[in-house]
Amino acid sequence: MKTAQKILLTALTLFNEHGENTVTSVDIAIELDISPGNLYYHFKGKDSLVNALMKMHEQQMQKILSREKLDTLHPEEIMYYLYLLIDSIHVFRFFYRSPADLAEKYPSIVRPRQHILSSLNKQLAYLFESLSKRDILIASKADRALMVDLMSLIITQSCQFDELNSHMDSTTQRYHALSLMMVSVLPRLALSDEQKQQLEQMLDSHDFMRDASTPSPLDFA
Amino acid sequence: MKTAQKILLTALTLFNEHGENTVTSVDIAIELDISPGNLYYHFKGKDSLVNALMKMHEQQMQKILSREKLDTLHPEEIMYYLYLLIDSIHVFRFFYRSPADLAEKYPSIVRPRQHILSSLNKQLAYLFESLSKRDILIASKADRALMVDLMSLIITQSCQFDELNSHMDSTTQRYHALSLMMVSVLPRLALSDEQKQQLEQMLDSHDFMRDASTPSPLDFA
Repeated sequence: MKTAQKILLTALTLFNEHGENTVTSVDIAIELDISPGNLYYHFKGKDSLVNALMKMHEQQMQKILSREKLDTLHPEEIMYYLYLLIDSIHVFRFFYRSPADLAEKYPSIVRPRQHILSSLNKQLAYLFESLSKRDILIASKADRALMVDLMSLIITQSCQFDELNSHMDSTTQRYHALSLMMVSVLPRLALSDEQKQQLEQMLDSHDFMRDASTPSPLDFA
Repeated sequence: MKTAQKILLTALTLFNEHGENTVTSVDIAIELDISPGNLYYHFKGKDSLVNALMKMHEQQMQKILSREKLDTLHPEEIMYYLYLLIDSIHVFRFFYRSPADLAEKYPSIVRPRQHILSSLNKQLAYLFESLSKRDILIASKADRALMVDLMSLIITQSCQFDELNSHMDSTTQRYHALSLMMVSVLPRLALSDEQKQQLEQMLDSHDFMRDASTPSPLDFA
């Protein structure tokens, strides 16, 4: 991995764990065991790090949110897709922690973040609409609009809330978010009891290991 | 209203609107048109303001969360109670914005905030359990535990999320939070279609004006 990539990855990890505001460029250099001068050679300050991370985040979200054929997915594939959405936001979760404060400090992230959120909402709306057309989801148009807001709230804020409440590790947080989604979606799904149980079992067993063919959102390849 | 109360109310309003970290003691004094010296006479810095506000918040939450007889409430009364919970957290919402950052800055608020959240969760758990015993709510014990987490997430974080997404006024934010709760709870309620419609109509018409007998959470009487 090249130095610039290592720097970005380390910055991202530290920002996610401690919040962007408590991490300095020097902290990042120390963590990487490089000189602040070397870091500065690659990125001229936190501003340029934050912007480079937003660019990565945008590109990866675009891949996930441009996925088509959502309207032929099976319920368990949909649950997996929801998990991917949680995962891909979670990897860049510091952008959604103290959202207003971050926007004030880095005005340049406001527009791409807004764009990501509105694409996320559109994709969720499309997913629910197609499920509803296929008579799998029982929800009026107004209900579906609220469900989109709720999913989006869970995806972007539940990890922050988990930090407030308890100390879950990062994987547990993602499954917790997915469980919160499913507890509100499941009663609206017109599935057999057997199918619902199957989904619940998948959820309980945390049965969503990335298979080798799915690239990690942090793949720099 | 006494000066100390005016100061608290103004600090609360500014903290809620702009976040605690961007508001200084001098801002509060200017807003009130008093001298910083006068403010200092009443509160020795932001630390003491934040602690006094937390004391108010605790007392008011205790009143609402110690309410008994939840197990005889009608569905519309339950919805109203959920609204009261949203409202009472919303009045002190800056405590739940950037929760980790605030905790680092004011370690003394961690314990009372934790206590409020665990009381809130207990009360919600009790509410759902009693509804389930009365066969009004269809939810397993595991489902109910997730529903408690979800309600708590909505109550504490949805206003923050709304700020990220759009510019709703404060009343709209509260009804939006209640709508998010109801969209996940309603499909689990064993009510007639007529009863469900009635709840939805109440929700749509924002029909929860405080009646004169309910004291405002900001009542200093």
